[in-house]
Amino acid sequence: MNSAFTPLVSKAGRDGMRRHNLSLVLGAIRNEGAATRAAVAARVGLTKAAVSSLVEQLLAAGFLSESGKTSSGQAGRPGTMLTMARTGVAGAGVEINVDYVSVCVVDLAGTDRVRLTEHRDNQGAPPAEVLERAARITTRALASAGEQELRPVGVRLALPGLVSAGRVRQAPNLGWRQVAAEGLFKKTLAALAPDRSALRVSSENEANLAALAELWFGGMDDLSSFLYLSGEIGVGGALVIGGELLRGAHGFAGEIGHVVVDAAGPACRCGSRGCLERYAGQSALLRAAGINEDAGAPGIAELARRAADGDERALATLREAGTALGRALSGAVNLLDPDAVVLGGVYRDLVPWLGPAAEGELARLVVSGLWSAGSGRLRASSLAGDAARGAAAGVVRDVVADPVAYAAC
Amino acid sequence: MNSAFTPLVSKAGRDGMRRHNLSLVLGAIRNEGAATRAAVAARVGLTKAAVSSLVEQLLAAGFLSESGKTSSGQAGRPGTMLTMARTGVAGAGVEINVDYVSVCVVDLAGTDRVRLTEHRDNQGAPPAEVLERAARITTRALASAGEQELRPVGVRLALPGLVSAGRVRQAPNLGWRQVAAEGLFKKTLAALAPDRSALRVSSENEANLAALAELWFGGMDDLSSFLYLSGEIGVGGALVIGGELLRGAHGFAGEIGHVVVDAAGPACRCGSRGCLERYAGQSALLRAAGINEDAGAPGIAELARRAADGDERALATLREAGTALGRALSGAVNLLDPDAVVLGGVYRDLVPWLGPAAEGELARLVVSGLWSAGSGRLRASSLAGDAARGAAAGVVRDVVADPVAYAAC
Repeated sequence: MNSAFTPLVSKAGRDGMRRHNLSLVLGAIRNEGAATRAAVAARVGLTKAAVSSLVEQLLAAGFLSESGKTSSGQAGRPGTMLTMARTGVAGAGVEINVDYVSVCVVDLAGTDRVRLTEHRDNQGAPPAEVLERAARITTRALASAGEQELRPVGVRLALPGLVSAGRVRQAPNLGWRQVAAEGLFKKTLAALAPDRSALRVSSENEANLAALAELWFGGMDDLSSFLYLSGEIGVGGALVIGGELLRGAHGFAGEIGHVVVDAAGPACRCGSRGCLERYAGQSALLRAAGINEDAGAPGIAELARRAADGDERALATLREAGTALGRALSGAVNLLDPDAVVLGGVYRDLVPWLGPAAEGELARLVVSGLWSAGSGRLRASSLAGDAARGAAAGVVRDVVADPVAYAAC
Repeated sequence: MNSAFTPLVSKAGRDGMRRHNLSLVLGAIRNEGAATRAAVAARVGLTKAAVSSLVEQLLAAGFLSESGKTSSGQAGRPGTMLTMARTGVAGAGVEINVDYVSVCVVDLAGTDRVRLTEHRDNQGAPPAEVLERAARITTRALASAGEQELRPVGVRLALPGLVSAGRVRQAPNLGWRQVAAEGLFKKTLAALAPDRSALRVSSENEANLAALAELWFGGMDDLSSFLYLSGEIGVGGALVIGGELLRGAHGFAGEIGHVVVDAAGPACRCGSRGCLERYAGQSALLRAAGINEDAGAPGIAELARRAADGDERALATLREAGTALGRALSGAVNLLDPDAVVLGGVYRDLVPWLGPAAEGELARLVVSGLWSAGSGRLRASSLAGDAARGAAAGVVRDVVADPVAYAAC
């Protein structure tokens, strides 16, 4: 059948295919790096003529740049290298956590280009005030981005707790319940920067976004699936499966902090007893080690220092927390069979002491027998596991997935 | 750009696209029912000419049938209805469980066409003998299929325990460890039916296949994700997310039977203590109710009868098992945020008594608050949740996903 010369695809199908192919070409350059038109054609399985046409559209819309011309500029410019644009369309991420707000702007390649962090206690302040403050910080970061000729097309909020449809259902560590976070943030942003009113605002759980950042930038390329734990005042979790976040039916997947480690254990603010957070949350760790439980990151650094010095109480604290972690994780591992578990947040620096106890429990309780100590399946996260960067990179991933939606392309 | 009349796609891309389009057309008829060529074109977004060409190929290869011609048979036969072929390519599923072997043959539409079940104790018998017996039963079912002009192109084995790469890593309730199930089955089948030596043999965990059958045939269309529990001598589990089975990195996902319900509970054969199976497995239920724990399905029927009669010991047994189930499920629900939990196997008939206690624990322990009693999220499985049918239907799903791989099409 001479399919190349008959109208195989209907008009609606053709428009959809062209849209899809623009994303295919852009994604091939983002994922596999700079390339000539011919190399892109080979990557995506389209003809050189078709790729050239798509590339012209992507260049005109400012998604791609050309560099390193190696030939005389003849028709088709075969030797020109195509790269993701370093200016123009960008993404912004805003992490609002218990003791800081951090804003990150990334370009189309996902590179971190602007970072603005303000340390402040957000606990107890009215949610509207915290979100207003976050919007102010964001406008300053957007101004910095503008000076680099970057134009964010969206802002994604990274929020602790249960986040769904633009709202925080509950974030106990911030003291939030039923907060219309996106709406409040957007309102302030529109008042402060009326020219930014078209900016799309979205939101997502912070552990989910930290896990995505870890996936995209943390050298976890060898993993097709992992469970990410974010040790903070609460214990957040996220599941990455087949390179995608598993969000759950309502966006609430990953809540591992209230797995019951011991049904006869201490009462938890969730109404249950013996939850993981009561053994391995930041406050529980500091309290058990005899450090002020509100000491935050410096307190965790102190705990790590004491453990490194061989302090018996610090070591026992981390052994016990590791055992609780291992027990909670074994249920999750039996259920999900992930390639690995990645420990982030405060756990990142505590893995040398938490890790062996957790691995012992995993070796004992995972029925497949694949989680013996030394299997390398329990890992510390890299520094890339950052929710603000994950949020910003998520915005530009959406652009690459459908560039037509973001430009008259 | 006049994309319809220029060669948009390279040769390799065109072959891939044609292959993809054949599947698209076949899938549209399987999923949405009989249709004319014009209706199929509208469903898939290809031109009528392209669909007609693809349909001719699928008719010639025997994947589709024509029926109900409504016009005079002119070129293109616009009024002809296309349906999935009721003869020809088919799939076979073979469930090997503790006390029976069941073989099912389905046609391309997934309809159950042959069923052969033999009740026999497979526990303790050498695995090679059980697999040889299963192959003998399969040849008889294949003969029945042949009489209906059905030609299975693959056999999928549904096996309890940890199944991966054609092997059963462990199936404690059968007493199997490291059994090369596919190879042993295939060897006997080839000896018994040399003309069947091209038959593809594959294998999968039985709870996974029962969950798929429930998804495809059980009226669970309103659910995009669910956790399926298969109550047998062990407690198997499976996760369906976005209409797909979540298999895990090694095919071992869904193992919920050894979630620790009480770390101080009774010892389990897995090496841990207080596992879910010790409270809610079939033997544990029968023992607690004072029924012979080896009584199998008739014992479960007796337990249900006693509960319906208001027998206090039976009711207490099911309340306690329900509480243990609810506790184990709450951790899984917090982690996965599924639309629903479906209780299959022996639980199907026990839900009226197990369910309320399990729902009570879910209401108390699921942090999203979405699992209150009466939420309808805890369901009994339908009768469709059958591993042999899921296995057979999986074979024909593979055919529909890539018909070219199964015919000179």
